[in-house]
Amino acid sequence: MGDGPTITTIAERAGVSIASVSRVLNGLPTRQETVRKVMAAADELGYVRNAVARSLKSRRTHQIAFAMADVGNPAYLAMLREIQPVLKAAGYRLVLHSTDAVVADEIDVLHSLGERYVDGLIMSPLRVTDTHLQMLATARAPVVIIGSVPDGTRVDNVRADSRTGVRLAVDHLYALGRRRIAMVNGPLDTVPGAARGAAYREALTDLGLPYDENLVQIGDFYREEGRRAVAELLDRAPEIDALMCANDLIALGALDVLRAKGRRVPEDVAVVGMDDTDLAAASWPSLTSVSLGSAERGKAAAELLLERLQGDDGDPKRVTVAPRLAIRASTAGPDYERTQRKEGGA
Amino acid sequence: MGDGPTITTIAERAGVSIASVSRVLNGLPTRQETVRKVMAAADELGYVRNAVARSLKSRRTHQIAFAMADVGNPAYLAMLREIQPVLKAAGYRLVLHSTDAVVADEIDVLHSLGERYVDGLIMSPLRVTDTHLQMLATARAPVVIIGSVPDGTRVDNVRADSRTGVRLAVDHLYALGRRRIAMVNGPLDTVPGAARGAAYREALTDLGLPYDENLVQIGDFYREEGRRAVAELLDRAPEIDALMCANDLIALGALDVLRAKGRRVPEDVAVVGMDDTDLAAASWPSLTSVSLGSAERGKAAAELLLERLQGDDGDPKRVTVAPRLAIRASTAGPDYERTQRKEGGA
Repeated sequence: MGDGPTITTIAERAGVSIASVSRVLNGLPTRQETVRKVMAAADELGYVRNAVARSLKSRRTHQIAFAMADVGNPAYLAMLREIQPVLKAAGYRLVLHSTDAVVADEIDVLHSLGERYVDGLIMSPLRVTDTHLQMLATARAPVVIIGSVPDGTRVDNVRADSRTGVRLAVDHLYALGRRRIAMVNGPLDTVPGAARGAAYREALTDLGLPYDENLVQIGDFYREEGRRAVAELLDRAPEIDALMCANDLIALGALDVLRAKGRRVPEDVAVVGMDDTDLAAASWPSLTSVSLGSAERGKAAAELLLERLQGDDGDPKRVTVAPRLAIRASTAGPDYERTQRKEGGA
Repeated sequence: MGDGPTITTIAERAGVSIASVSRVLNGLPTRQETVRKVMAAADELGYVRNAVARSLKSRRTHQIAFAMADVGNPAYLAMLREIQPVLKAAGYRLVLHSTDAVVADEIDVLHSLGERYVDGLIMSPLRVTDTHLQMLATARAPVVIIGSVPDGTRVDNVRADSRTGVRLAVDHLYALGRRRIAMVNGPLDTVPGAARGAAYREALTDLGLPYDENLVQIGDFYREEGRRAVAELLDRAPEIDALMCANDLIALGALDVLRAKGRRVPEDVAVVGMDDTDLAAASWPSLTSVSLGSAERGKAAAELLLERLQGDDGDPKRVTVAPRLAIRASTAGPDYERTQRKEGGA
């Protein structure tokens, strides 16, 4: 993998087949001469510290798991793109779990740490239940949580600050003159749903705007569910002039529905997403979105896990990544975008 | 996981904590009374055949790996969505590898089968090298390949028919009166790139259209690379009236560039993608795309693998999934789409 020695480079150096190297490294019966050549080549190439050592009964698997709540959401792919190289450089292979945020599946992944097929786990749960906490307390390998956990939970964790993030977005919409700012959120029993809903209410209050339950629609963090929720909201409250969406997928669903209904974005309704995924910049119109630092959070999680694997047994650590607002056409209009492009920005 | 008994339901039934169930199932020291309760509850719930049996030294891991060439491409997510429930229903947990189509990483995954942390592997390589073939020949667990392999390779495989798929698309563009049909392809050293390039040339020839190298641009199977390739192609051959793209991500990149250059789709340039991913129906304009049956291929691969895990040791099997053309606004225009919607189609 990567630049380091691989069974391919060992095979070349040893002048034997890949299959032979594989047999030797797996401890299968092989001609003595071949074993000697392969071990010599592996040694010369500095391979001894990982795969050979592993086959010689080190207790490490050199695999790390990343349990993703939604592989179809590019926010998690952004984390993955940072996690993978950090772990790879340290000699770990990454395996992924797709849990669809189903609690039972996440618990099963935590439980599977007992089977020791990975050395550690990075997990991004949307809900942190008592069962999660119980399993974390007895986990048989280091775990890093991307997301918030209750205070006092003894686990390394990397947090977004979606409260400040929602605040940035609502303030931006207010500054553009919008006063009927609606919100489409994910389920309130998820950590991000609860945090973003509360932050929206708080931001309105601080701006002196009324909080109107009629302007809040609960859906789920997927595009299709976003479409459905926005369609319902527009039927009920057609007079809204801005939409704060709890993630980019919901916001893309909002753009679909607004277009189908002939409402102009941003002239009639300004739209803000959250996560600032690749899809935000690529959508039409391009989507203003709150970055919650997915890439930075992935990197930080991988680094925290590596520290644990290198023997750090100190107190649990907490990293919080600050949000940023990426302003694009869905709030500021196409002219803004053209200006930005000229200036080399956005 | 799913509807079956889980450590959560066992804990409830036994009246003990999740952590206790986990300890018992992992064979850790636990009070005798607790062991008795957990085993009784597990037995009553019919759990005995999976996790308990596993902990009692069956040689199975009850994990299956799926090595994806590009987790950011929804074509693989469509496969995943079918693979996951089939394997889950049979009691397997799925782990994913993200190889980014890097040969060394795929070889490493094949190699890791010797570590026996999974019972089987589904893999979707874009390139099938001699090293792949060598590793497949000595693989220590059943493997199913999604993609084409050289004739005579002794491995179960599930193929798309992208040759017929490209033909459907080019015939459709021809029927719409397009005569300057360009192609944006992925790398020619990949199996799909080679097949789709050859099929495009063949389709033109059969229609009596000249093959013009100037109208072919090689990029890669990602949106950003698609943008770059289409921009180059348009600079060189601005007179084209149709674009056959080797996958949906390239086609989305094409829509971005055409929009930025003020070329109307489909009036000036008709665009066809390939894979018919979720993004095709959701894009603006909606994208005509060749379905290569990602979902069906994923399902077939999971079923083939299960047969092997249930002891089938017969000759390698090959399944080929037929393509379909999903016609949308990027070739047929918005009017077509409106008609379709009225009729309840597309």
